[in-house]
Amino acid sequence: MSSWGNYLKISIFGESHGGGIGVVMDGLPAGEFIDREALLLQMGRRAPGKDKAATPRSEADTPEILSGLLNDTTTGAPLCAVIRNTNTRSQDYGNVLSCPRPSHADYTGFVRYHGFNDIRGGGHFSARLTAPLVFAGAVCRQILEKKGISIAAHIASIGHICDSRFNETEIADELMQMLSESTFGLIDRTKESEMRALIEECRMDGDSIGGTIECAVKGMPAGVGSPMFEGVENVISSIVFGVPAVKGIEFGSGFAGSALRGSQNNDAFYYDGDQVRTRTNRHGGILGGISSGMPIIFRTAMKPTPSIAKEQHTVNLMDKTDTTLAIKGRHDPCIVVRAVPVIESVTAIALVNLLKDVNML
Amino acid sequence: MSSWGNYLKISIFGESHGGGIGVVMDGLPAGEFIDREALLLQMGRRAPGKDKAATPRSEADTPEILSGLLNDTTTGAPLCAVIRNTNTRSQDYGNVLSCPRPSHADYTGFVRYHGFNDIRGGGHFSARLTAPLVFAGAVCRQILEKKGISIAAHIASIGHICDSRFNETEIADELMQMLSESTFGLIDRTKESEMRALIEECRMDGDSIGGTIECAVKGMPAGVGSPMFEGVENVISSIVFGVPAVKGIEFGSGFAGSALRGSQNNDAFYYDGDQVRTRTNRHGGILGGISSGMPIIFRTAMKPTPSIAKEQHTVNLMDKTDTTLAIKGRHDPCIVVRAVPVIESVTAIALVNLLKDVNML
Amino acid sequence: MSSWGNYLKISIFGESHGGGIGVVMDGLPAGEFIDREALLLQMGRRAPGKDKAATPRSEADTPEILSGLLNDTTTGAPLCAVIRNTNTRSQDYGNVLSCPRPSHADYTGFVRYHGFNDIRGGGHFSARLTAPLVFAGAVCRQILEKKGISIAAHIASIGHICDSRFNETEIADELMQMLSESTFGLIDRTKESEMRALIEECRMDGDSIGGTIECAVKGMPAGVGSPMFEGVENVISSIVFGVPAVKGIEFGSGFAGSALRGSQNNDAFYYDGDQVRTRTNRHGGILGGISSGMPIIFRTAMKPTPSIAKEQHTVNLMDKTDTTLAIKGRHDPCIVVRAVPVIESVTAIALVNLLKDVNML
Amino acid sequence: MSSWGNYLKISIFGESHGGGIGVVMDGLPAGEFIDREALLLQMGRRAPGKDKAATPRSEADTPEILSGLLNDTTTGAPLCAVIRNTNTRSQDYGNVLSCPRPSHADYTGFVRYHGFNDIRGGGHFSARLTAPLVFAGAVCRQILEKKGISIAAHIASIGHICDSRFNETEIADELMQMLSESTFGLIDRTKESEMRALIEECRMDGDSIGGTIECAVKGMPAGVGSPMFEGVENVISSIVFGVPAVKGIEFGSGFAGSALRGSQNNDAFYYDGDQVRTRTNRHGGILGGISSGMPIIFRTAMKPTPSIAKEQHTVNLMDKTDTTLAIKGRHDPCIVVRAVPVIESVTAIALVNLLKDVNML
Repeated sequence: MSSWGNYLKISIFGESHGGGIGVVMDGLPAGEFIDREALLLQMGRRAPGKDKAATPRSEADTPEILSGLLNDTTTGAPLCAVIRNTNTRSQDYGNVLSCPRPSHADYTGFVRYHGFNDIRGGGHFSARLTAPLVFAGAVCRQILEKKGISIAAHIASIGHICDSRFNETEIADELMQMLSESTFGLIDRTKESEMRALIEECRMDGDSIGGTIECAVKGMPAGVGSPMFEGVENVISSIVFGVPAVKGIEFGSGFAGSALRGSQNNDAFYYDGDQVRTRTNRHGGILGGISSGMPIIFRTAMKPTPSIAKEQHTVNLMDKTDTTLAIKGRHDPCIVVRAVPVIESVTAIALVNLLKDVNML
Repeated sequence: MSSWGNYLKISIFGESHGGGIGVVMDGLPAGEFIDREALLLQMGRRAPGKDKAATPRSEADTPEILSGLLNDTTTGAPLCAVIRNTNTRSQDYGNVLSCPRPSHADYTGFVRYHGFNDIRGGGHFSARLTAPLVFAGAVCRQILEKKGISIAAHIASIGHICDSRFNETEIADELMQMLSESTFGLIDRTKESEMRALIEECRMDGDSIGGTIECAVKGMPAGVGSPMFEGVENVISSIVFGVPAVKGIEFGSGFAGSALRGSQNNDAFYYDGDQVRTRTNRHGGILGGISSGMPIIFRTAMKPTPSIAKEQHTVNLMDKTDTTLAIKGRHDPCIVVRAVPVIESVTAIALVNLLKDVNML
Repeated sequence: MSSWGNYLKISIFGESHGGGIGVVMDGLPAGEFIDREALLLQMGRRAPGKDKAATPRSEADTPEILSGLLNDTTTGAPLCAVIRNTNTRSQDYGNVLSCPRPSHADYTGFVRYHGFNDIRGGGHFSARLTAPLVFAGAVCRQILEKKGISIAAHIASIGHICDSRFNETEIADELMQMLSESTFGLIDRTKESEMRALIEECRMDGDSIGGTIECAVKGMPAGVGSPMFEGVENVISSIVFGVPAVKGIEFGSGFAGSALRGSQNNDAFYYDGDQVRTRTNRHGGILGGISSGMPIIFRTAMKPTPSIAKEQHTVNLMDKTDTTLAIKGRHDPCIVVRAVPVIESVTAIALVNLLKDVNML
Repeated sequence: MSSWGNYLKISIFGESHGGGIGVVMDGLPAGEFIDREALLLQMGRRAPGKDKAATPRSEADTPEILSGLLNDTTTGAPLCAVIRNTNTRSQDYGNVLSCPRPSHADYTGFVRYHGFNDIRGGGHFSARLTAPLVFAGAVCRQILEKKGISIAAHIASIGHICDSRFNETEIADELMQMLSESTFGLIDRTKESEMRALIEECRMDGDSIGGTIECAVKGMPAGVGSPMFEGVENVISSIVFGVPAVKGIEFGSGFAGSALRGSQNNDAFYYDGDQVRTRTNRHGGILGGISSGMPIIFRTAMKPTPSIAKEQHTVNLMDKTDTTLAIKGRHDPCIVVRAVPVIESVTAIALVNLLKDVNML
């Protein structure tokens, strides 16, 4: 299903080459002023063509808001935004039906929907569907910001080139702000040229490259999340895996922490004035599924763009033979860059749900 | 919430030192024969005291089935199983209320429930609550096995000591069978003594150690899972993070794959007779959230047991001061061992949900 | 929430005087051919201006389908349809904010949304929101018809003027067909002039009149529905009360049956060839929440349109005084007529959910 | 499914002649003191054998609370209560499998579960399953009472003998209190002897009789409920139809109101001090799905007990022939009496959900 959420429900619709894509958000609190400029700024971060490391396509990703806003203020009724599809070149994808692109959803979608799924441009599986996710996330983050909760992510790595990590106990507001507006978000900006060079090299090779994204939430109050299956980790991961190309997620010390001893991985509590904090933050701001008040920090693994120009082995589903395929068309050699605001966005949606669960929204 | 699932719903209840713990399973197909011996075998794999690397406590974890089974066959009505709590030593936990144990849910649960949560033995956050999860999973895996779907996990690592990985394209039935009955599941059994030595060393130190678990699903048909938010990855991760101590999950090539190029990480399709398969399985059996027919393979990161005997820094919530704490009581120095059947179990529950979604159950 | 359904999820959005209204349908089976003409025929039955007993407004209720259909066949991805708002005369509603219309949602919506709800034309509470419901229902009934399941409703009463009832055990296909295309659906057409005269009388009086609608489902297989809270009655009623003005529902013999003895109300089983049927159908085709294979029959009570031209007592929320109100604008003196296809439509949506629950869709 | 609720989830389990029945309540607020005596008082109102008009069976319906309560205070973790099955006489039901009882769920349950459902005593469809509903409702009403919200129902009619109706605008606290503790709840106690005589007459005839129940909620704040599908009417009806024998529900003026004109059925607003109230309450306390602050009033239609001693026509499913059946065993000639606290209970559960939706719990 392309619907998500218990308290704030979002319903994503659309196919890459259909009439349009969009989102319905049901359960927003009434009376929240939404800054349309800030929405467009977030949409722009994800849009192709904004950063030179991304695909050269340019989309008119301007959302039309059909409902739920009056005088730029939420009415409490469902908010629907539609983005028209334009500038599509369907002929690029002419052979997809017979020959599934390796590591795409072409084959599995074909089986799941008995061949009826719209395969033009990946159809409903297209990364273009992240545009309404960013829209919805941009609405949510404005609501969160008024509660003092900010979200920012950065490119933690591209290939083997790594950015610095967030300081796990204290993240400067300026860094949060800078990253949340960036189109090539890095903590250590000296890594940018090296990363861009790698991406360009992959593009020249007709290849692509994967990476990781690290996301932080600052200002999250303690006590948010519910045990077992509605913990912060469950809720975030259940929506993060809705972002195409995500193949892994880890919170706090994550996989590295699993090699440590308890005495190394445990976080000592202390009083900072009246507030309980931890000296370290291996737990990534979440204990027993519930926020501790420390920054929530997690990383996601993004696989390399499966669309590459190099010739690949695949099958012809029509005549049931093995064959080869060279994918034409315009593709990001590295989706990590544009996925940064998407990860932030789904996190914002997840947090609104979590806060509603405990009556904080 | 401690309820999970859309098509098969499970509701877990209980607290470590309360009257009992258990599970209600609502939505099971009718007419499924359930082998009670096989249930107990799975319960036994998780039970403490079965393996010498685990805690010396022994529990009478025999579940009483109150409903939903007649002549050992599912009736279609909700199946409820209750496990009584016995052999509890509450005095071990006397100071928890005032001094939260580092990296436990004591503090966050205290905030979330305004101090009303049962803190004896961790209450509802106790790892003991995984017993009803294993029960529910054991019911599900019997149903799956009749469909030719098997699930097995192994200790992929403890500290820095690593087991071999599953062969990503072909896993022998014998290995699946062996692991799914093991209490110290390894592919490469030569690693056992080294791992046990490390665990014993940690116990002697009053410390603990983390690890990773790798889980495989064999026989999953292609075409299971739904786009965006009900994909196989979303569904599995949303329940896996309900297992205490899990801090990360990755599917297929996961985090390692994020450092690769598309040409390295893509999986070529080919025909194996009439069946579409992939030469490699970096995608972990899932593309676009939908099963490909290849083995589903994922790994979880388990943090080291936070309960350690070493003295730790914490706070006293009553008088708002910093203090130290040495946790007494009996604790697993390495929960990874007993978590293996738990990971298998929640996977089984997730798969029943996914198969119901596409009318295969 | 304006979202409904577990297996097929619908999400309704829009406000009477906003940019547009519509629906997202998530979970439709792939490969279903949808006849657009048949969709428009159903939309037309609900549209104002089609029948002279209804409001003189005419809406361009032509839905634009943005996604989910390719070559008029469902793709399995969410289907979104948008209907633009045109021909709105907002000035008619200028005083609503300060003076809530009696028996409308103006006051309760004001409290619920702290005054931020769009009150123009009733906003999200407007009966106009039934247009996307009819659209969604029209899609569903086409899917049901291929399974041999038909739905038809008629005006069971307007004021004290009653139509005949459905034959409870056997409903002719011709009647089902006729009603499902009618804009003033009656079994006994001789009642039409009397009913129209009463409606016209109310209109002349600046008043309105209520009525009841009886709905039948033919061809429903036995064994659909789940015990307790997902029975056919629960599922239908949970969506039927989403139709504005519905204040009651009864299945089978309903309230009248509650005055009977068991020997009068029980339905004797018998074999009709190989098929189990009942001699009477007091149970309305549902026993224990599960369909029996007999026609499903229920009636809904529709209150009189609250918008009347007569002067009424209300309050001024701004200066906290009692006052009077005469509602201007164009209003149906009897919404029962146009509600008939709406009741059929939500029933169709409910049935698709119920059939998916038991893997029949 | 036997699970219900979004914010407070209840999961009912058990079969009439199985090991036990019970409920899990997930999502209760923490810190609520629960008076166990008051729980038992409510359980006792539903229990058979308490009132001479009911079945002579006596059940040890004492629930055992396994979790979620500590020092009689909710912990926030799921609360599970189990009631053991005793005093069952399975031989009374020996022929049910082959010959379904008319107007019971025997036949439809048989089809739904392919013959695997536990048919002893009605299995999961037994009215005995209302015991855990009353338990859950009794917990909820204690929580509501602290918010000033009280719930009471009475026998509105048995056969054609009618009790008085609630005063629709003002219900005395004493009446609410009296009814909420009664085992034969009437507003006009002079009707009791006539009603009892009718019930006794039916019993002597080997027959049964239906009736209606009217339920009121007092103290409900305005602004509770959400548009379209989570309105108060949707939520209450979706759980009320989970009570066996309910075949209809109407709110406010309901079916009678559908024969009225708008000018008769509309409720004038006025200021009572600072509070907006209505002069009449045809709307039953709900407008647009949202509470108005006036008493919520609804009526349910209960069909006559289908289990009657008179010989009835049915079928033999084994040899596919028509046959007759005389039901032996002990049965309520009128379930309306014991259903009164059940209706109150499910209403209490519904209200807790509704209040959680708007952050009032």
